[in-house]
Amino acid sequence: MQMKIVVIGANAAGAKAASKAKRVNADVDVMLIDRGSFISYGACGIPYYVSDTVTDIRELMSTPVGVIRDANFFKKVKGVTVRPQTEVIRIDRHAKLLYLRDSLTEEQATVAYDRLVLATGSSPVVPAIDNVSLPNIVTVKSIEDAHLLKQAAITGFNACIIGGGLIGLEMAEALRQRGMKVTIIEMQEQLLPGVLDREMAFLVEKQLRVQGVTVMTGCRVTGFSGKAIVEKVHIGEHEFPANLVILATGVTPAVELARVAGITLGTTGAIAVDERLRTSDPSIFACGDCCETTHLITGRQVHIPLGSTANKQGRVAGINVAGGDASFCGVIGTSILRVFSLNAGKTGLTETEARANGFDVETVLSPAHDKAHFFPGAKPIVIKLVAERMTGRVLGVQAVGEGVVDKRLDAAAVAITFHATVDQLSQIDFAYAPPYSAAMDNLIVAADIMKNKRDGQGRGISPEEVKRKLDANEEIILLDVRSPGEHLEAGIEGATLIPLGMLRERFNELPRDKEIIAFCKVSLRGYEAQKMLDGAGFTNTKYLDGGLLAWPYGLRAAYTI
Amino acid sequence: MQMKIVVIGANAAGAKAASKAKRVNADVDVMLIDRGSFISYGACGIPYYVSDTVTDIRELMSTPVGVIRDANFFKKVKGVTVRPQTEVIRIDRHAKLLYLRDSLTEEQATVAYDRLVLATGSSPVVPAIDNVSLPNIVTVKSIEDAHLLKQAAITGFNACIIGGGLIGLEMAEALRQRGMKVTIIEMQEQLLPGVLDREMAFLVEKQLRVQGVTVMTGCRVTGFSGKAIVEKVHIGEHEFPANLVILATGVTPAVELARVAGITLGTTGAIAVDERLRTSDPSIFACGDCCETTHLITGRQVHIPLGSTANKQGRVAGINVAGGDASFCGVIGTSILRVFSLNAGKTGLTETEARANGFDVETVLSPAHDKAHFFPGAKPIVIKLVAERMTGRVLGVQAVGEGVVDKRLDAAAVAITFHATVDQLSQIDFAYAPPYSAAMDNLIVAADIMKNKRDGQGRGISPEEVKRKLDANEEIILLDVRSPGEHLEAGIEGATLIPLGMLRERFNELPRDKEIIAFCKVSLRGYEAQKMLDGAGFTNTKYLDGGLLAWPYGLRAAYTI
Repeated sequence: MQMKIVVIGANAAGAKAASKAKRVNADVDVMLIDRGSFISYGACGIPYYVSDTVTDIRELMSTPVGVIRDANFFKKVKGVTVRPQTEVIRIDRHAKLLYLRDSLTEEQATVAYDRLVLATGSSPVVPAIDNVSLPNIVTVKSIEDAHLLKQAAITGFNACIIGGGLIGLEMAEALRQRGMKVTIIEMQEQLLPGVLDREMAFLVEKQLRVQGVTVMTGCRVTGFSGKAIVEKVHIGEHEFPANLVILATGVTPAVELARVAGITLGTTGAIAVDERLRTSDPSIFACGDCCETTHLITGRQVHIPLGSTANKQGRVAGINVAGGDASFCGVIGTSILRVFSLNAGKTGLTETEARANGFDVETVLSPAHDKAHFFPGAKPIVIKLVAERMTGRVLGVQAVGEGVVDKRLDAAAVAITFHATVDQLSQIDFAYAPPYSAAMDNLIVAADIMKNKRDGQGRGISPEEVKRKLDANEEIILLDVRSPGEHLEAGIEGATLIPLGMLRERFNELPRDKEIIAFCKVSLRGYEAQKMLDGAGFTNTKYLDGGLLAWPYGLRAAYTI
Repeated sequence: MQMKIVVIGANAAGAKAASKAKRVNADVDVMLIDRGSFISYGACGIPYYVSDTVTDIRELMSTPVGVIRDANFFKKVKGVTVRPQTEVIRIDRHAKLLYLRDSLTEEQATVAYDRLVLATGSSPVVPAIDNVSLPNIVTVKSIEDAHLLKQAAITGFNACIIGGGLIGLEMAEALRQRGMKVTIIEMQEQLLPGVLDREMAFLVEKQLRVQGVTVMTGCRVTGFSGKAIVEKVHIGEHEFPANLVILATGVTPAVELARVAGITLGTTGAIAVDERLRTSDPSIFACGDCCETTHLITGRQVHIPLGSTANKQGRVAGINVAGGDASFCGVIGTSILRVFSLNAGKTGLTETEARANGFDVETVLSPAHDKAHFFPGAKPIVIKLVAERMTGRVLGVQAVGEGVVDKRLDAAAVAITFHATVDQLSQIDFAYAPPYSAAMDNLIVAADIMKNKRDGQGRGISPEEVKRKLDANEEIILLDVRSPGEHLEAGIEGATLIPLGMLRERFNELPRDKEIIAFCKVSLRGYEAQKMLDGAGFTNTKYLDGGLLAWPYGLRAAYTI
């Protein structure tokens, strides 16, 4: 008897699992069931379709050579039978039967399986607030959503995005590009919570404001109102006009089928699987957004739905369900987004996450050009490196800037996966030529700064701590060691100017009984100033982590002479 | 008594060592001696200065905020005394004395040291051939070279570049951009020997030809001729016009001072150092282009002079000479170049290098877009992955293409450093969003293909082997499984077309007694075809590694209907 494999859900994970199962074992019969009419599409591409960056929605459903991945394609090319527009209403694990309903005809049917793969994905969270079902309140998930968003994105109209995470920010850019007035409302006190620490998220927020996006953090939407369609967003007593509302407050794993069938769910609420992606039922595997996985740094179970993970897991589930042997070990929480001209992302743990998981950490903020500074098109990026204080192990890297950040995140992702220390990271033989990086890549500079801190050579102080001291009127000397020209142009209110090149001659102008915090544009000169002052016997010296480029607060305006 | 540290050579390694020594230990006296008048410049930037990409030569000698790194800068900012235009003519290790000569006045002097750092760099190889000292025969090393090159790069004139390595190719682009007719003459049978395997180098060669560069491989220059300046390059009986000749046949470590002083040289001819960069004399350290280092994969000593390595080593030497403790472990031979619109480079071992070092290897050629294929600006790159057959350990990655290659090389560099297997590489949590990569990054796809090969699922055959079979008129079926449209447009001469979607229905058109080699654009469909044929009982099936995109030989022209 031919083994019958059924896969529920025909997007990234499911489509991959089905195709892979058939490739691995040509003798099996593979059926792919999906409730939607569009299968195997790239939901990650929706913001780019809405913004007209991608003009034809079919591009999201095509192979790289332009063949639509429809039922016919899966039949002819992959040898997989697809049943689209078919809802699985129940799994009878005892009888190994699926109860189906055709979404168009409402006809019911059953399908038997020997082995089953659950790739049911995730659903956008729809918060339970007043009038949330009004028309023009939209999630960002399906091809139908994409069409609706594209139609509703009208120049001059108001869009309100609920949720300042990755999808919220991608949609903010898309809708601005379509000429809408855009407001982002985020419940937490910062954008991109869980992706960036606060001072890094501020850099992104600055950019959004520059691009004309209104950002409201620490605000909770309490309801919507409108006649035929949504017209207003309510935050307690206040109301804001909105012709289009995007719900981007996260997703939840689609586990109802599994739950009802008695398959074990994990602590995150997603389906629990072992390394081979087998569920609590040995005949049933799960992959993609519906299941949880292991965070390789904390060892905890996490639910971080991503297309990249779904594809990796689909391959593993496909091999195993067809009788092979493969494993998926886990993730380290890497994520990235492009928002206007900024690239921003992280890999591993943020400082907040690391501390919440009990790590004693040291951090570094390191702004620098992404290429040799003399190379045209070189742009700054700010790296935040988080390491375990005792061991120097790299726990996380965040990066934000107009320059290239994805490459630094990818290299760091490998380093973190292999438990690299900052010492090891600082000596990686990265690819160097002026169009690609400075002779010392940004990651190496950040690692070296961390080494200086851990050796006691460098004593950085975070922008947040300096801001706190300034706001509390503590008696500190904020020492600007840039050139007079740079100092005139912009700076931090209340700073004292002594250019680095004159510092050795002007030590006597500085009091020996006060805390001195030196800074420059990126705090390389700031660090050198701290070292000079140390050498001259000053005992309470620091430099501002990341200098002005990583300073997330307001700067004073230019002095006029 | 204040410890006296002297550093010889004020470029990347030496300047870094001197500055770092002073920062680490403010009590030491640091002197930096250089025979040139320009110090601390970025020689890697010279091709970009010649091409006018960098307009002001001073940018190569400046800090990122535009301060010239001259003697005054080192004095004021770094606390380091510089003696430029000063030749060290002898090291008396017994007396710890340096004998100096002022290059301008010819005056001699001595300087005592407690500890010495040799950062004497490397010199371009000047081959001993007839009339090599004629004017307008230039190396690419010093600021003086840069000025001369900029003047001699005259539109419409002939430039002949001797050596098809990294600098040769960078100069080819620079001189083409200045409107010169450019010929590259390389002794070996391929460009970029030691950087790329032959089929990957062919991809670069194709691009150079497209850009109007004449490429002559397997040719040895035997002499030059000309009256006032060079006019002709001779290759045996043949002669070629040349108004400018670039000698780019490699560099040799500048070790004369060390050798005469009795300091041990290594097997490569460069100065031997331990991990702390100490030479055979415990008071003398060496760093940068003048010393050799360990190749972390082969364990052998190598001399691979690079600005990135020089900076890392300068830091280590600076710490150690000032009484601290740091190590430099070695390199893995990463290099990269941009040449016209192509990016090309490698990390770890090429297939050739791996075999020469006794590794039994498996290889993969994997072409794919560098971003989500639907994202505007996505461009192809070809990755070649080299792994140890038995263990699956990643030994090397090469990448060539118009898309982003540096990021893949950097991530691979970390993976190789940590002895990653292809299994581990295939599950790295890389940063995914459509502007940065496909859901499965190019490295993951390459690793998965390697896994398929190692599992016996995929049987790839290299382009070179297929070409050999074709040239030998072996009885093979070269099966093009692309669409009829793609097939018409271009292809490999003699291929049979059966589009993948029709293959299941047309098995009977294929003979079961012949070797069938399937291919498509990138060989994903080629691999699927091999799997389908396997499933149908064909026993001698393969796919062409890398498909048409990685096919380095000529393609047949479009069929006209």
